Parts: sequence; structure tokens; C-alpha cells
Amino acid sequence: MIDVRIVSTGLYLPARIQTSAELSALIGRSEDWIISRTGVRERRIAEEPMNRMAARAALDAIGDGPRPDCLINASLTPLQLIPDSSVFIQRELGWESIPCWSIHATCLSFLVALMNAAALIQANLYQRILIVSAEAGTPWRNLNQPESAALFGDAAAAVVLEKTSEASAILDWEMSTWPNGAELTEYRGCGTRKPPGHPDNIPEDNLFNMMGPKVFRLVLMHISGVLRALFERNDMTFDDVDLFILHQASGPGMEGFVKLGFAREKIVNIVAEYGNCIAASMPMTLAIANARGLLRRGDRILIGGTGAGLSIAFALVQW
Amino acid sequence: MIDVRIVSTGLYLPARIQTSAELSALIGRSEDWIISRTGVRERRIAEEPMNRMAARAALDAIGDGPRPDCLINASLTPLQLIPDSSVFIQRELGWESIPCWSIHATCLSFLVALMNAAALIQANLYQRILIVSAEAGTPWRNLNQPESAALFGDAAAAVVLEKTSEASAILDWEMSTWPNGAELTEYRGCGTRKPPGHPDNIPEDNLFNMMGPKVFRLVLMHISGVLRALFERNDMTFDDVDLFILHQASGPGMEGFVKLGFAREKIVNIVAEYGNCIAASMPMTLAIANARGLLRRGDRILIGGTGAGLSIAFALVQW
Repeated sequence: MIDVRIVSTGLYLPARIQTSAELSALIGRSEDWIISRTGVRERRIAEEPMNRMAARAALDAIGDGPRPDCLINASLTPLQLIPDSSVFIQRELGWESIPCWSIHATCLSFLVALMNAAALIQANLYQRILIVSAEAGTPWRNLNQPESAALFGDAAAAVVLEKTSEASAILDWEMSTWPNGAELTEYRGCGTRKPPGHPDNIPEDNLFNMMGPKVFRLVLMHISGVLRALFERNDMTFDDVDLFILHQASGPGMEGFVKLGFAREKIVNIVAEYGNCIAASMPMTLAIANARGLLRRGDRILIGGTGAGLSIAFALVQW
Repeated sequence: MIDVRIVSTGLYLPARIQTSAELSALIGRSEDWIISRTGVRERRIAEEPMNRMAARAALDAIGDGPRPDCLINASLTPLQLIPDSSVFIQRELGWESIPCWSIHATCLSFLVALMNAAALIQANLYQRILIVSAEAGTPWRNLNQPESAALFGDAAAAVVLEKTSEASAILDWEMSTWPNGAELTEYRGCGTRKPPGHPDNIPEDNLFNMMGPKVFRLVLMHISGVLRALFERNDMTFDDVDLFILHQASGPGMEGFVKLGFAREKIVNIVAEYGNCIAASMPMTLAIANARGLLRRGDRILIGGTGAGLSIAFALVQW
């Protein structure tokens, strides 16, 4: 158990909405096909860079509060390779001298950053950590893969984490990674394997590629084990959870959680309105739940889901 | 203070050596010019991907010991954008189900990962964490920038971190980031700013670019303050340090530490033999110092240096 509290949440949604009717023409599938396969009715399209989106979400989270003493970027879509995006987020905020870095675990980046930040605060290395996830990945959708192309959206969200003497805490967490899923969700470019500009590269190398049904099967093989480890260790059942804040992978993915036994009415489901916003998906679900008044201090919430790797991770949090 | 111990270190050096005489023809500068400007006599050139180098360094660190329960990749040069390189390192090791992710703070990635890992162990979330840094960045040298092109080398190094009841500990650390240095050391490609394949990209966008003298001036403005904060808080002076394990930025950079007051004979200097191996630089210096018998349990060592951002960070470690 780590005695930290998410003291505030922040959200930034790009203004431009792309409906599934609009996307339909781009990917050669009907609006109905898109919605029935992916559950996504509309998504946001960023017209600003990720660091600007991140700064807006960060300011929303900070409000009138003091600056953090540490900043962690937990986003998948970088602005550039060097320096890491945390530096550009700090600059956009007009700050300097605050230590910052990035954590990359694809869609689970926020949750991994949350655990790392909580441990750093517990160790008294920092008092107040800002975690920001901002995704501007829609230009990287592979329009020849209608199902994955229809999933993604852009958004940013942030949280501020502090030590607490109240009842709030991160109770426990569990994560596992199965590298046999590495090619099931990938972006092959932007590294030494397919260096930018290499003549052998094909356009798909620099787009999101996802084999949805295969990912789903691999998740089904492993997710119950990860959840069982976490809940048994804490002597809890799914019924003890007051609210489920999940990675919004897809409509069918959200239904999968119902089949696993999560009570539908306790799942915050925003996938139809915003799609899968990669690493921003979990903190934006949290921020929206917070804005809707769904998070009460002392409640037990489960935060987690799946990410490329394949990785599966969940944290039990006493809000 | 965090009661963790680096229980072992590992190293992997690619076989191919590129001398400064050999590099001379590629960058249009004499061997003497290269050595006097950068201090680098030779560097290794990887012929294998970073995940294979990482796995070899990891196995060297693990030896006959048990597998870790967490794996953190702390490398700058990724294999591809998704999944993050930790997944490919785990696969190369033939493992599965071990939680893994990546931390990116350019040349300081290892040190940031060390602090995060130490805090996670202190919080009892993991018992034994493997941190690996592997860099295969020499193909990204900008041969039109002779000074930066002569600096970089490839290598991999790893450490295993565990909780300890012995005298070993991470005593404290200090890090700051100044985003006004963002453009002084950069790789502009591989993100949303200069997406791969975009017609406006120029070749330099996908190469390392560094304005050495400007970086040096910015470091000089700030490094004393970071060190002073750390040493004053711990009531220590540079004389209390038994060994300096520093980021091997360049020959002149290493001389800069002597001018700051670090005793030359206590600095482990490997820059002439291996160049600047980005995030692998610090752990390989540690691994080489360990192999040479320079690290005695109970000794106080300072690990740190500078990274793109500009970031400056140092940790005080009781070995």
C-alpha cells in the first residue's frame, strides 16, 4: 500500500470532432459497420501538437495549486525522438528546472507512470508529481485497416499526485507482459529496425497496425490470471470495486470486461464518444468520472487494462 | 535514503571497433582533430539490434542468479515505436510474463530508471529489478557535424537491483531540467513534428544534432547549483566521494568535471575507448569499474551527468 492521493485531474479535448459517418468515406466502410465493430461513434482530431494539448490538460489539473516538483510524460505519440516529450511539455507550461522524463508502455504508460510516481513520493524523493498523457496519433491511423483506423482518437489528460495522511492510497497493483504479442499491435517505424527514410520502408511501417482478433484472443488467455492474482492477494472480489476506470480499447473490449464479471453500471465507458486515445485513455476516463462526480473519497476503484506488448496491468486504488 | 543495492552489473560490447583514423575519412577531419576535440580514440559499432545487445548485457548481469520480477529498458535508440523496446528485450531473453516498460530521459535514462526502480523496490512492489540500457545509435550520426559524429558509440550495460539489509543504499538524488536547451541536442524526427516519410523532412531531421559549445555553456550555468543542492543536503563534499561514475559525454566534458573539483584519479574515464554511448554510458562505466575491482561495498559513489533537455542529474550511492 502506498499512501498517495490523486488530488486533482485535468482534461483537454481537441475541438474538432470526426464522426464515424465522416470517417466512413476514408476507410471504405459504412457508419453502421464502424459502430458495430468498434463501438466508436466519434473521436477528436488534434490540430495542435501533443505538448500543447498536454500543457492544457496539466493546467486544468493544477488549477490554482502550486507547481509540481516533478513532471512525468506518459504518452505514446512523441513530438520527436530527442529530447523526450516531457521537456517540450515543461517548456509549453513556461516552467524550468523541474525534473522531467517520459515513461513508455504504450496504452499502459499512464498506469505505469502512476505506480512509479507513487513509489517516488513514498520514498520522499518528490512531494507533488504531475503525470500527463497527450496523444495526437490520428495522423498515424492505417486507413487500409478499417477496424484499427476507426478506433483511435486524440486527447490529453493529467493528474496531480501527492502524499496523503487521509484514507486515500494505491492499495496494490499487478502487471504482466507477454512478448509473443509484440507484432499484434505495432508501429514498426521510428527506430533502428525501420529507420526513417530507409528505401526498404513501406508506408504501413509508419502507421498503427493492429490485429484486433488475435490481440483479443491473447488477452482472453491471460487477463483472468492477472486479475485473480491482484484480487486474491487483497482478499477482494469484483463486487468490492465501486468504479472501473479502464483503458478504452474498443467497444467490444469494454463488453469483454462485462463478460469477465465487472458490473456494467460501474464501468465508466467513454469509448463511443472519444474512441481509444492510447495512453491518454485511462487518465481521461478518470478525469471525466471525476467531473461527473462519480469518484467519492474512500471508494475503491480499479484502474487498468491492456496495452501493446502484450501487457496487462491493473491497480487497486482507494480514492 | 532507499535501502537497495546494485547486486550485479553486466556489459556487452559489439566486436567491431571504429578508430578515429577510420572515422576521419567519413567526416573530413584528421584523427588528431577528432581526438583533440572529442577525446574519443575509438568506438564500437553495433552489427546487431539493440534488443540483442541488451539481452547479452542482461545475462551478463544476471549470471547464475534468478530472473528479475520486473524489467526496465532505459535506452534512447528504440527498435521501433510500438511496442516499446522492453518487450523485445524480454523476448530476446526468452522470458514471458515479467512486467516491463521503458524510461526515456535521453542520456540520463539509466539514472532515472535506477531511481524509479529503487523506489518501486522500497514500496515492496518488486524484489529484483533488471535495468538495461542498449544503444545502437551510430547509424544516426550526422557526418556533416564532425564533432558530434565523432562522439557516439554503441554498447549495452545492465544492473540488477535488490532490497538490502546491508549498508548499501541510494542516499539521495537531485535532478533538474531546463527546456531552453531543447534544441541544443536533438533528433527532430520519429514523432508527430517530423513524421517519417513527410516530404518536408530533410535528412538531418533523422540524425543526431548537437550544438556542443552551447550545451557546454548551459551546463556550466546550472551544474554547480544541482551539485550544491545534493551535497549540502547530505552534508558532504566532493572529497567524501570515493568514485565518480559519470555520463561519458565527451573528453572535454570529462575535463569539465575535474575543473568542478572532482579528483581526477577518482573519475572512471572510458570516453577515449568507447565514446559517448548515450544512455548506456553510465551503466557501462559502472560495469567496467566493477570489473576492474574499483567498487568496494560501503564506498560512496556519485553517479550522474547531463542529458538532452537540458537535464542534469546526480545520485549519491553507498555501494
